[in-house]
Amino acid sequence: MLTLKAVRALQSADVILYDDLVSDAVLELARREARRICVGKRGHSESCRQDDINSLMVGLAGEGRHVVRLKSGDPSIFGRAGEEIAALAGADITCEVVPGITAASAMAAALGLSLTHRDRAHSVRYVTGHGCTGELPETVDWQGLADPSTTLIVYMGGKTASAMAERLIVSGLDAETPVAAVAGVSRTDEWRWRGTLGDLAGDRLQVPSRQPVIIGIGPAFATATSQRAAGADRSQPDATGALTEAAA
Amino acid sequence: MLTLKAVRALQSADVILYDDLVSDAVLELARREARRICVGKRGHSESCRQDDINSLMVGLAGEGRHVVRLKSGDPSIFGRAGEEIAALAGADITCEVVPGITAASAMAAALGLSLTHRDRAHSVRYVTGHGCTGELPETVDWQGLADPSTTLIVYMGGKTASAMAERLIVSGLDAETPVAAVAGVSRTDEWRWRGTLGDLAGDRLQVPSRQPVIIGIGPAFATATSQRAAGADRSQPDATGALTEAAA
Repeated sequence: MLTLKAVRALQSADVILYDDLVSDAVLELARREARRICVGKRGHSESCRQDDINSLMVGLAGEGRHVVRLKSGDPSIFGRAGEEIAALAGADITCEVVPGITAASAMAAALGLSLTHRDRAHSVRYVTGHGCTGELPETVDWQGLADPSTTLIVYMGGKTASAMAERLIVSGLDAETPVAAVAGVSRTDEWRWRGTLGDLAGDRLQVPSRQPVIIGIGPAFATATSQRAAGADRSQPDATGALTEAAA
Repeated sequence: MLTLKAVRALQSADVILYDDLVSDAVLELARREARRICVGKRGHSESCRQDDINSLMVGLAGEGRHVVRLKSGDPSIFGRAGEEIAALAGADITCEVVPGITAASAMAAALGLSLTHRDRAHSVRYVTGHGCTGELPETVDWQGLADPSTTLIVYMGGKTASAMAERLIVSGLDAETPVAAVAGVSRTDEWRWRGTLGDLAGDRLQVPSRQPVIIGIGPAFATATSQRAAGADRSQPDATGALTEAAA
């Protein structure tokens, strides 16, 4: 799901700073001579590590290297890109941001559904499942989030899913609201779960993978299946497929 | 900004049904023999045209053609994909959805900013600027939208921008809240505007292009410039660029 623009950027890089969610297949698209440095953050103190990444990026670019900071998903959505852009601007280093497919779009495509519907879902909202400390964010307007006509997508919400679902139900969202969860979307080890908001509150979401999970809440997920769609199996040579397709 | 997966889909298509916002460069990536049919909707009665597109897609796939429905942006976000998927499912035709870069991500990348920030923007929300009739949607929770810690992105909101801004200000959002607007993002005729929510309410957003405009509202846009970034000019051979890069 890499864009052509991202491939071109990878192929022009002297150094690639990548997150640990980036697959080997993507890294192989870079020039053989390019230096590849994993700056993955899982299991470390996040804020400290972010400062290290900023310094490394600024240092290497300052030496005249063409640096690519490679992330999974879209850097503008819960990707800490703002802090990296600010660090580069502070050091007077020019940068360009190449957008990516954010996890919500990848999830919707994998489940074969739309996050909006002109009759049922007028808006879509992305929130994070944890604040700086790893707990449920405290400054959330739960009443506003518990809106049945908005599709709610929770990034990095595996650990706080049950507490969040409880707050949404208390704030008025129906416990029967459909929920889908996906980890490792579009990867070979992709994992899916399907249930209701009540199931989520009852702690029935158990993510086996170490991949971060993305959770979708709302009527948009009523048609989600817990199985991979038959259409996803491109090995069937005689399947008549009509693809819904996207191009920016 | 097309993904590698989308290019592969295009190259396997017998027939491509494309919107009028899709560029010639993208269409040229398809096989020479592929039939290309423009099903662009601007200027027509939208709902009627959507039924025609559904029928055409079902008819062609039913004849055994491999059909690609090519859209600009991400089909799961205000892309009517739900209705197309339902029409195909109703006719027992297998389909796969290939995600794309939605306009909000393309806009954030073009402006060199993040839509979320761990301190300032805890969530991001996409809404549409008009309902079925082209007017401002009536069932909107304005109080919920007027949340200073959420980045608000308005799709297709050019005509209703002034009325929407007025409602947001009345609902408590500061008239000094930064606003950015982009039309034809990432195209050669890209157009940008920068102002405040008060400017928007005062009808100071005048979009010259026939491209749909995307409007961003919130502190995230404080650093947006109305000029293209110097880093976007890839023709400078000796520019030391550090790219922030994304891969799904």
